[in-house]
Amino acid sequence: MSEYILNLLPVNEEEKRTFEAIAPEAVHVYAGRRTVTQEQLEAATVILGWPRAEDMKNARSLRWFQSMWAGTEEYVGMLPQGICFTSSAGSNSRSVAEHMLASLLAVCRRLPTYRDSQKAHRWEDEGAMKTLLGATVLVIGAGNIGGEFAKMCQSLGARTVGLKRTVRGEVPGFDQVDTMEKLDHWLPQADVVAMSLPHTPETVGLMNEERLRRMKEDAILLNAGRGSALDQQALGTMMKEGKLWGAALDVTDPEPLPQDSPLWDIPNLLLTPHVAGGMRLEITRKNCIQQAQDNLRRYLAGEPLVNQVK
Amino acid sequence: MSEYILNLLPVNEEEKRTFEAIAPEAVHVYAGRRTVTQEQLEAATVILGWPRAEDMKNARSLRWFQSMWAGTEEYVGMLPQGICFTSSAGSNSRSVAEHMLASLLAVCRRLPTYRDSQKAHRWEDEGAMKTLLGATVLVIGAGNIGGEFAKMCQSLGARTVGLKRTVRGEVPGFDQVDTMEKLDHWLPQADVVAMSLPHTPETVGLMNEERLRRMKEDAILLNAGRGSALDQQALGTMMKEGKLWGAALDVTDPEPLPQDSPLWDIPNLLLTPHVAGGMRLEITRKNCIQQAQDNLRRYLAGEPLVNQVK
Repeated sequence: MSEYILNLLPVNEEEKRTFEAIAPEAVHVYAGRRTVTQEQLEAATVILGWPRAEDMKNARSLRWFQSMWAGTEEYVGMLPQGICFTSSAGSNSRSVAEHMLASLLAVCRRLPTYRDSQKAHRWEDEGAMKTLLGATVLVIGAGNIGGEFAKMCQSLGARTVGLKRTVRGEVPGFDQVDTMEKLDHWLPQADVVAMSLPHTPETVGLMNEERLRRMKEDAILLNAGRGSALDQQALGTMMKEGKLWGAALDVTDPEPLPQDSPLWDIPNLLLTPHVAGGMRLEITRKNCIQQAQDNLRRYLAGEPLVNQVK
Repeated sequence: MSEYILNLLPVNEEEKRTFEAIAPEAVHVYAGRRTVTQEQLEAATVILGWPRAEDMKNARSLRWFQSMWAGTEEYVGMLPQGICFTSSAGSNSRSVAEHMLASLLAVCRRLPTYRDSQKAHRWEDEGAMKTLLGATVLVIGAGNIGGEFAKMCQSLGARTVGLKRTVRGEVPGFDQVDTMEKLDHWLPQADVVAMSLPHTPETVGLMNEERLRRMKEDAILLNAGRGSALDQQALGTMMKEGKLWGAALDVTDPEPLPQDSPLWDIPNLLLTPHVAGGMRLEITRKNCIQQAQDNLRRYLAGEPLVNQVK
């Protein structure tokens, strides 16, 4: 069965040679998300990369699709029936985890407020700060990203607790792992609550007002998963009341955050425009390419693929 | 020889009891930097804490002075002759190192620019970011603070090189340690140059324009030691030319930074008003108290004191 591999990944020449060496008998076609043609989409038996979801209905010969991202919700209901769909889960874990750590430490040290003072040419001491040494960090969603973030916190002297749907023994990076049902038990004990959840029917609205109010009054909230998991209006109201030490959100609902949202103007709430992941670090790109190459080897050998979505 | 211990440290009741148990025969007097009286200063044989430098000339009975800070330059030439002078070096290392890490990661992830966008209600992607994974971090001044910072960078996947005056074997936190003479050799190899130097005749102007220009064009500069070690005017000029990825300064020369300095307005240059150390974390306060108690025990036993300045 001859393969037509439509490669939409951001590959360099050396990486192209590696793909071709893995599948020497296949047709290799390289294109971009915007430059790909209808003919290429129709002919492809394998698509690697980040095609527009609406283009996928034309992929009539498709057998396997390896997406460039960890998140897959944009393709739900958009793919041809019966194909194999794999993601690049884990490829940007380092980037997202490092962004979470950067945001957390920034909020601990009041850097958002110091930056505001800097803009106003003000040399002004903001007083007490927070440390990760001895802090309890609760990670809601102990997957690839949550685990990588927890490892970083642990190495800086924090105690880490991870929550996930199903617990099967220890998870690296966590001092303790518990099931999501224990969320209400752990919230009042955490100095940092870090959300790293995908958008699913179970996660929508998970961090509602009641749960936000279970947090310590001087705790820090992070969200780097999906905005829909957090009641951001309740968060805004609480922080305006002076609750919580601070927060950092890389995701909101909707995105972009509407102009009139009160979240923009809260002093120790740091907003970044969904930039924790993506292709902002070279290692993320390399991870994606390597995952695709590894899965291509498996695909041709008839072995089970890694990161299978369906 | 009876002791009159003038304790200006921020102690709680339990900590007072500990001081009194260590020296049960001494007179213990507690006061603050501003509330201390001339009589107390004249009677004190031991002063612990942060007296005003100009008050020290009245300390006619003084034999030992334990200062509350790591830095000691404010007392140069201000202390009575022949006394023993110890510092609290190391007590705020964790705080300063964590501030350096927070600032470094903030600059890596362009958080200063994202904060500016947030203030303007702008949802705007700033593109590429930097990671500590695989980065070479050069620490100029491999003392308590530099070492603690290096350990943190190492645990996040960086390679760390430390420079100090005298090298006597390995130093925890550093993959490699070299003498200060090798500064020009290491500067072009570093992704991050972190300055953690005291103010001394040798350090003034150390990081001059020529050395700044030896740095990689996309490197990051940190200064959390003393502002006098850096030619901040040259730094401002270079960054306006588009050199360097970013910078974070917790110290300037002079302080506060003058209103008309160009440093205030450089996009990826983060300024904080000398707040990395101080008593902003409870652990710093505890470390100071414990160092003073430990040295008091040694003083009474006639043992050498820790952190002796002269």
